[in-house]
Amino acid sequence: MSDYVIRDPDFEARVRASFDAQGAMALMGIRLVSAVPGAIEMVLDISEKVSQQQGFVHGGVVTAGLDSACGFAALTLAAPSVEVLTIEFKTSFFAPSKGQHLTFRSTVLKSGRRVSYCEAGAFSDDGRLVAKMSTSIAMVDMPNGWTPDKTK
Amino acid sequence: MSDYVIRDPDFEARVRASFDAQGAMALMGIRLVSAVPGAIEMVLDISEKVSQQQGFVHGGVVTAGLDSACGFAALTLAAPSVEVLTIEFKTSFFAPSKGQHLTFRSTVLKSGRRVSYCEAGAFSDDGRLVAKMSTSIAMVDMPNGWTPDKTK
Amino acid sequence: MSDYVIRDPDFEARVRASFDAQGAMALMGIRLVSAVPGAIEMVLDISEKVSQQQGFVHGGVVTAGLDSACGFAALTLAAPSVEVLTIEFKTSFFAPSKGQHLTFRSTVLKSGRRVSYCEAGAFSDDGRLVAKMSTSIAMVDMPNGWTPDKTK
Amino acid sequence: MSDYVIRDPDFEARVRASFDAQGAMALMGIRLVSAVPGAIEMVLDISEKVSQQQGFVHGGVVTAGLDSACGFAALTLAAPSVEVLTIEFKTSFFAPSKGQHLTFRSTVLKSGRRVSYCEAGAFSDDGRLVAKMSTSIAMVDMPNGWTPDKTK
Repeated sequence: MSDYVIRDPDFEARVRASFDAQGAMALMGIRLVSAVPGAIEMVLDISEKVSQQQGFVHGGVVTAGLDSACGFAALTLAAPSVEVLTIEFKTSFFAPSKGQHLTFRSTVLKSGRRVSYCEAGAFSDDGRLVAKMSTSIAMVDMPNGWTPDKTK
Repeated sequence: MSDYVIRDPDFEARVRASFDAQGAMALMGIRLVSAVPGAIEMVLDISEKVSQQQGFVHGGVVTAGLDSACGFAALTLAAPSVEVLTIEFKTSFFAPSKGQHLTFRSTVLKSGRRVSYCEAGAFSDDGRLVAKMSTSIAMVDMPNGWTPDKTK
Repeated sequence: MSDYVIRDPDFEARVRASFDAQGAMALMGIRLVSAVPGAIEMVLDISEKVSQQQGFVHGGVVTAGLDSACGFAALTLAAPSVEVLTIEFKTSFFAPSKGQHLTFRSTVLKSGRRVSYCEAGAFSDDGRLVAKMSTSIAMVDMPNGWTPDKTK
Repeated sequence: MSDYVIRDPDFEARVRASFDAQGAMALMGIRLVSAVPGAIEMVLDISEKVSQQQGFVHGGVVTAGLDSACGFAALTLAAPSVEVLTIEFKTSFFAPSKGQHLTFRSTVLKSGRRVSYCEAGAFSDDGRLVAKMSTSIAMVDMPNGWTPDKTK
C-alpha cells in the first residue's frame, strides 16, 4: 500500500459524501466504517429484510456492500475530477452469510489511469471469509461534472 | 429450450413461495412476473431508495434482481428435494440503470446434475440491455430439508 | 448488429494481420475463419498437444481461442489508431471439449469509446456449446503507435 | 493454511503425474515447480511462440498457467478418488506479461466437498503481479475412474 498515490487530499470527505448519497446503502442497513488510501471498511447490520428464501443474507445485498466498498476504495485514490464507474464484478460465495453483522473490507490491487482493479471480502461475526469480489472500475475524468452520456 | 426436463410439476408454486420468502426482493421493490421452465422474468420499480451516488440504480440492486432471476430459473428445472445455491456470478454493466422500471430476464444455459449455468439481462424502459449476469449455481440434494452445514 | 459503426474500412485486413502476428494461435492450432463487423469465427484443430490430464482440450487453450475471438471482434469496430487490451474475462465450462474441432464464435455486446463488452462461445463438432466467455476490453487510443507504458 | 485437510498422502506424486499428462503445459513451456498442500508454483519460460500481436504473452497462455495452478492446488487436498473439474474462472489483467519468465502461484481459498475455490497470481521477473485468477472447481467423486459422462 505504500506506493498508493493520493490525488485528492480531501478523499475521505468525498467518500463520506458519496456514501451518504447512496440510498441503497441506507435501505439495506450498511454503514461506512473507515476510508483510508486504497481501502474501505463497511458493516451490514443483518436483518430479515435483507434475506433470501433460506434466511441468509441475499447474495445481491452481500454484493452491494462489496461493490460499494470496492468503488469507494478506488475513489480514495482518484483525482477530484475523476468519477468511478463499475465495469464489471464477480462475487464468489464460500458460505452462507448469517449472524448479526457482515463486514466488508476492500483493497485496490492496481490503481490505473483508465481502469482500477479492486478486491473485497465479506466477513462474518467470527471473522470467517464468506464471500469475495474482484472488480474492474473505470476511472472517468469529468472536469465539468457528471453526465450520463459520458459513461464508459 | 425444448430439451429442458421438468422434474417438479409444481415448480411455479415452489418458485413463487420461495420468491415471497425473500425479504430482500420486497425491500428493493422487485416483483416476480413469470416463471416458465428455464426462464424467469422479474421487474424492479425504480425509486430513490435503490440509488447509488449518481442517482442511478445501485449495481448491487441490479445484481440482486439478476441473481434471483437466475437462481429461480435453475429452480424451475430442479427436483423437489433439490435446492439451489449460488456458487458465483459476474455482472457486466453496459450503461447506467435509470427510468421507471428495470426488467430482469434469465435463462438456463445448462441444467446440470451438480451445477447449472444461467444468464440474465437487465433491460431499461426502452428495451436496452444495461447489465448482464453469468452465474454458476450448485444443485444440492437435500432430501431431509435444508441445513446450513450441507452447503457446497 | 445493424447499429454497429465501422470506423476503419480496412478492419478485416487489420484483424488478419494482427491474428497472423499471434504466435500463440499458430502454436495451439487455431485458425481465423471470418471477420465481419462485430463478430469473429475461429477454429481449433484439436490434437494431443493441447490436452489436459483427462485428454480433453485444456481450459487455457479454449480460453485462448475465446479471448482472441472477442478481442478481434472488438477490433473490427475500432478506429485505425485504437488498440484493444483485455481488461478481464470469465470463462464458464459446460462440458469437456473433445472431438476434431472446436469452433469459436464471438460477438460485440456493446461497442464503447473506452470499454467494449464481448461474448464468445466454443462449439464442439456436433454444434453443442461447451464453453462461454464474457469479457471487458479497453479501447486505447494510440495515435503514435503502441508502447507498453500506455496500457490501461 | 494450517486448517487444510490432506486426504491423499501421495498428493504430490498425483499432481506431478497429472501435470506430466497435460500436453498443453509442455506445448506452452510451463514447468511445475512445487506442490504443497493447498498451493502450487509453476513457471512459464517466455518465448515468441506464446505471444499475442503486441509481443506480450497471450492472455490465454497466462490463463492456462493460472488455471492449471489452481486446479492442481485443489487436487492437493482431494481424496484419491476425487477428480477436479473447472466450473469457471475469471482472469484480470493488470499489465502486459513480458520478460523471461512468468511465475504462477495458486492458493486454495476454500476446500469444499462439492466445490473448491482457488486464486492464483501471475508474477513477472521483477515480482510484479501482472494477472490474477479466481476460480470455482468441482470436486467430483469417481470411485470407478474418470468417464466424461460423469461431469458436473
